[in-house]
Amino acid sequence: MKINGCNLHPLRIIPGEKGNVMHALRSTDEGFVAFGEAYFSSVKKGETKGWKRHHRMTLNLVVPVGGIRFYLHDDRPGSISFGRMEMVELSNENYQRLTVPPGIWFAFQGIKPGLNLLLNMADLEHDPAEVETADLSKFPIS
Amino acid sequence: MKINGCNLHPLRIIPGEKGNVMHALRSTDEGFVAFGEAYFSSVKKGETKGWKRHHRMTLNLVVPVGGIRFYLHDDRPGSISFGRMEMVELSNENYQRLTVPPGIWFAFQGIKPGLNLLLNMADLEHDPAEVETADLSKFPIS
Repeated sequence: MKINGCNLHPLRIIPGEKGNVMHALRSTDEGFVAFGEAYFSSVKKGETKGWKRHHRMTLNLVVPVGGIRFYLHDDRPGSISFGRMEMVELSNENYQRLTVPPGIWFAFQGIKPGLNLLLNMADLEHDPAEVETADLSKFPIS
Repeated sequence: MKINGCNLHPLRIIPGEKGNVMHALRSTDEGFVAFGEAYFSSVKKGETKGWKRHHRMTLNLVVPVGGIRFYLHDDRPGSISFGRMEMVELSNENYQRLTVPPGIWFAFQGIKPGLNLLLNMADLEHDPAEVETADLSKFPIS
């Protein structure tokens, strides 16, 4: 990926007659830091949640249902990818885990009708003191 | 619950205009042991996956989409709930986390049309040596 520290890891979907198994995260995977909290967030088609920036939390994001477009923006002083904006779409058709380190602004948008669901497996429990939010207009999304 | 060591923990669904946030697991929650692996499993309506028994793994199960009926059977020698069978249905309408300790036989059945999805947050990575499977007829499901 173009933003330093952000990574995509392909994940397996194992089909079965009764239903599928979909990998998400293992403690020995690249990008795993620690386990603090797992939670789901859904986003309706055309809606965008964000911007948010975590100061200490690393995110590990998977999209088991629907499709979600993630926007990432790097304004970390001194970063080799300073000023870059990146976009990635995750879904069953592009089933990967997105790792987002602390300090990256991110937003996400629902792109399919019906449920668009993400699971974030974070290394910290939710703590309002380590997260910053900004209006969507802060970094315009094309 | 009627089987010793199995527990249900109510979880919050926080509604939002753009989409919901649904809690799953925190490292300080009762029932959390360690983080080994998180994976999804889907099961079609009327289909039942199981039986399975883990020898070392503790499961933490949530159902973010659809509805799933879990069957639990205790044949641990010396258990105070030896011989008991228990059934619990999880869905958005009964959004709870089910903790299943090692040694319990379990099976699960899809109960809604469309996607029935569970997330298992386990304390170990998948290891075929610590899981035992049995035909569904081993403990008949009424």
